[in-house]
Amino acid sequence: MPRRADLILDQVRRRALGPVEAPREWPLEALTRAHDSDYVDFLKSAWTEWSADGRSHDALPLAWSIRGLRDVIPQSIMGRLSYYSFDAGTPITAGTWPAVYGSACVALSGQERLIGEGHQAVFALCRPPGHHAAADYYGGYCFLNNAAIAAQALRDGGAERVAVFDVDYHHGNGTQAIFYDRSDVFFASVHGDPRENFPFFLGYADEIGTGQGEGFNANYPLPWGSGFDAWREAFERALARLDAFAPDAVVISLGVDTFKDDPISGFRLESDDYFHIGRALAGLNRPTLFVMEGGYAVEEIGINTVNLLTGFEEAA
Amino acid sequence: MPRRADLILDQVRRRALGPVEAPREWPLEALTRAHDSDYVDFLKSAWTEWSADGRSHDALPLAWSIRGLRDVIPQSIMGRLSYYSFDAGTPITAGTWPAVYGSACVALSGQERLIGEGHQAVFALCRPPGHHAAADYYGGYCFLNNAAIAAQALRDGGAERVAVFDVDYHHGNGTQAIFYDRSDVFFASVHGDPRENFPFFLGYADEIGTGQGEGFNANYPLPWGSGFDAWREAFERALARLDAFAPDAVVISLGVDTFKDDPISGFRLESDDYFHIGRALAGLNRPTLFVMEGGYAVEEIGINTVNLLTGFEEAA
Ligand SMILES: [Zn+2]
Ligand SMILES: [Zn+2]
Repeated sequence: MPRRADLILDQVRRRALGPVEAPREWPLEALTRAHDSDYVDFLKSAWTEWSADGRSHDALPLAWSIRGLRDVIPQSIMGRLSYYSFDAGTPITAGTWPAVYGSACVALSGQERLIGEGHQAVFALCRPPGHHAAADYYGGYCFLNNAAIAAQALRDGGAERVAVFDVDYHHGNGTQAIFYDRSDVFFASVHGDPRENFPFFLGYADEIGTGQGEGFNANYPLPWGSGFDAWREAFERALARLDAFAPDAVVISLGVDTFKDDPISGFRLESDDYFHIGRALAGLNRPTLFVMEGGYAVEEIGINTVNLLTGFEEAA
Repeated sequence: MPRRADLILDQVRRRALGPVEAPREWPLEALTRAHDSDYVDFLKSAWTEWSADGRSHDALPLAWSIRGLRDVIPQSIMGRLSYYSFDAGTPITAGTWPAVYGSACVALSGQERLIGEGHQAVFALCRPPGHHAAADYYGGYCFLNNAAIAAQALRDGGAERVAVFDVDYHHGNGTQAIFYDRSDVFFASVHGDPRENFPFFLGYADEIGTGQGEGFNANYPLPWGSGFDAWREAFERALARLDAFAPDAVVISLGVDTFKDDPISGFRLESDDYFHIGRALAGLNRPTLFVMEGGYAVEEIGINTVNLLTGFEEAA
């Protein structure tokens, strides 16, 4: 079975959506604009430390500092795997750092082309995804938050206001957390209700930002089983907020696990619905970077992704 | 291979340490004196809810509410498994509730005999262990905190001051948390340094209690590889603190994973050292309830446990 990235790339080429280009390398400083440097250092060295003790199986954390436990960084690699993560399903392997660094470079190179070359839209085919990763923890298969890194790079490149719109089935808890106290990056998300879906502990409608960031965060949780009508109604409310924010650039956290046949998610979007989403996003009429997030219905992942991009392209 | 409880019971019978008696049933109110009632309700119904969706494999949590995530109780069973736990290695199965309820009844029946029948010592052969479980979360194979439940029952039965001394290899984070703001229960623990050992996020030497409980919590973390000399030095310091507290009753969280051949722990105690520990504990000269906690070197678990009890018996 081909990898998910290949399925998407294959569809991108078939529809001739535009030139396909390789990313360039970026300095770690581009990552630490959105992540803590001790966390990036940990990700970079975790596998080496883990395997130094003779272990060759995947590195997985064991325990978490929940309510009443202390916010201390343990010394052992097992303790630090626990400290820097928030779920039990995201292993670190020999290939993790090269993969997540490469994925972040794809997002960074994407935003560079958007601004530097004046494109209306760029698609960053990031693997693995990033939106569950916060400044200093990983989870949900995400280690580096590609969308947040790109949004910050757009800010650093001169965009005064950047909007991040997360349309993945799951709440982008990491992206929200990174920008929660800031008014220069607006985060909006339409997603499965965290009362019944991962990540469970963030993504509620009453999370509106804090301090300077109050009013610059908008969550639209929807119940398991929601179809496109309910989804579109929330999506359009989010879109109106983002339009009113008047961003200089938009980053779309693009997950297609909203699809009806996705094996781990609960929405019921059809393949044709993604054209509509793309057209509506083009209506913002802003330079737009699409950053790939989740999608687990392997057969249709390429089709749905490219339907959305095609919808955008036709309407832009 | 015989179960751990059988190995211990076999040794208890061989050395004729005293009558072996079955526990009686206790009302849930005896558990909710140390645990939150919503947590006990959750434990009681978790497997039924989990298996109602057709799942027959062990129920395991997925994500945790660490720093920056919210302290909310999700609605779905998967979300509540996450909320009420702090590690990834403690499954809930069809037999979990009967086992943990039974284990707590063993501890409760033990304390009842200690007080009601005027014994100098009672051994509660609890399985599974309990000292990692707090008022509202489980982990480290522990669901109900047998030692804390027994200590609270001793208080409720008239003991004005109760000391809990945890000699398991691992810090008794749950017991500490339950009594952390109280001056009527003194908690002391000698254990593997949490910087390099589970539970990682509690068990440091600077945790001395809070509010009314300040000065009534004492931790003695020791480095991986510590032998009996280092262990005994810490143990005797803890013992002096407990003696000065002048408790009316003592609960020993008795783990024998301090043994040199324990497969998951890092101390180097020999089987004969447990005689010494028992003798020293008898020196407190207080009614003493031993509550079984951890121990994973299966061959010697019975011998080491009973060596300690024999040492106590000889010196008492
Ligand atoms: Zn997703
Ligand atoms: Zn232990």
